Order: sequence, then C-alpha cells, then structure tokens
Amino acid sequence: MKTYDDSNPFARILRGELPCIKVAETDAALAFMDLMPQADGHVLVVPKEAAVEIFELSDASVVACMRVAQKLAIALREALRPDGMFIGQFNGSAAGQTVPHVHFHVIPRWDGQPLRMHAREVADAATLEGLARRIREHWRAD
Amino acid sequence: MKTYDDSNPFARILRGELPCIKVAETDAALAFMDLMPQADGHVLVVPKEAAVEIFELSDASVVACMRVAQKLAIALREALRPDGMFIGQFNGSAAGQTVPHVHFHVIPRWDGQPLRMHAREVADAATLEGLARRIREHWRAD
Repeated sequence: MKTYDDSNPFARILRGELPCIKVAETDAALAFMDLMPQADGHVLVVPKEAAVEIFELSDASVVACMRVAQKLAIALREALRPDGMFIGQFNGSAAGQTVPHVHFHVIPRWDGQPLRMHAREVADAATLEGLARRIREHWRAD
Repeated sequence: MKTYDDSNPFARILRGELPCIKVAETDAALAFMDLMPQADGHVLVVPKEAAVEIFELSDASVVACMRVAQKLAIALREALRPDGMFIGQFNGSAAGQTVPHVHFHVIPRWDGQPLRMHAREVADAATLEGLARRIREHWRAD
C-alpha cells in the first residue's frame, strides 16, 4: 500500500486550502472541473477518504464515487450533448495517474475529436466556470 | 436511452451461447478475459443486467461491477505485478465502446508500454487461459 501524502493538491482542495471549480458534492465525494481538461466538460470525482489508489479505497467510497460519476455522466450528457462518455480511473504513473489521491475522470467524447494530452495546458477559468454552471443545472441530487 | 439488442456478444456469453474465459462471477456480474487485450491481463466486467450504457444501469449493478473491478485490480496486481492499473468504462462509439452492453475494462499497465489498439488482434487462447488461471488464484470472493 502506498503511503498517503496529505500535501497533494486534491487533499488541499478537500481541506479548502486550494480553490476548485465545484460541480457537485456529497458526504463522501467532491466533483470539480479538471483544470487541464482532455475534452470540454472533463470532470474529476474525488473521494473525501484519504487513499492513493483504488486498491486501498473503502467499498463505501468506491460506491459513492461511482454513483457520483454515473450521475455526472448523465448531467454532462444532458448539458453538453456529447456523442459518448468516458469514465476512467488510473492507478500509478504507469497508468497515467498524476495526483496521488484516488480520482475518477468523467470525460465527454465527440466523434472525430481525440482526447487532448492530460496535464499539458491549463484551461481558461471563465470557460471552465461556464461549463461547470451548465453541468450543475443538470445535476440531480439524490 | 438506447434500445438493448440481446443478440450482442456479451448477452450471448451471459446466456451461455458463446464461450468466455471466465475469471470471476458474482450474482450480478461476470468477469472474463478480453479476447483482444490492450495489455496482458486485460479483463472485462459485465453486469448481468441488460443495459447498453452506464446512463441506464441500475445503482445496484454499478456498485456490483465496481466492487468486482476493484477486487480484480487487486488480484491482477498480485498475479502480474504491473506498474499501474487502469479501470475504464466507455459509452458510445465516440468513447470507444464496441459492444452494446455496459462493460468495465480492468487493464494492468507497465512503464513504457503503451496500450495496444483495442479490438484489432485476437490473442492466443492458451495464453489467455494461463493469465486467467493466475488471476483466479488471487481472486478473493467476499
């Protein structure tokens, strides 16, 4: 099991030490815009539980995150009308994980538009805020 | 909502009309080797519920599939010692979905080894059987 480093950016967002463009929140998870999106509407779902990878995440948090991811997929589909939807969870740098706190990607896909490289370019904040507003309008709390 | 076509290959596997190299099974989900793996140890988790995409899958099946995916990730890590692990779920051909029955990919990743293209080349059955056997040895039923 990997040791959790609570100075990672998602831990700092969860503690309110760093800002985020929030889309949804439940008791167990927080969803916010990826600042370096691979496609328009790229949202991250982060469990509040401290865990580096899926291997050590509790059942309750796995379930809570996937429930949020599924509902975000539905909200994103209604808000942005993409052609497809990717839900992904990467463990270890070999799999593309860049922040050592478990997270799930929810990424709308459009025909003929390959994903942009991750963690290369920071998106315009106003654009992200506008997308987040549109997604929030379609988010349905349980 | 997309109409479910019960002649798709995963429906036929679930009904026992097509064979699969099974890795694990629960009341709600079946896990088997991807015949056209993107990396060694590529496993698919398929809910027994009939649904084309994640949008229409019941909460119970989402939870059941992710629980199996997480436990497979643990078993794959122990069996194959990869450097990382990818868990992904694609909806719509724009996102890379090729079979119209919801499924989750669990794919071990190794440093410096890009994923192979999906659905291009059928793997050797004996190789897949050997991998499945190694994964099953590390699968822990609840």
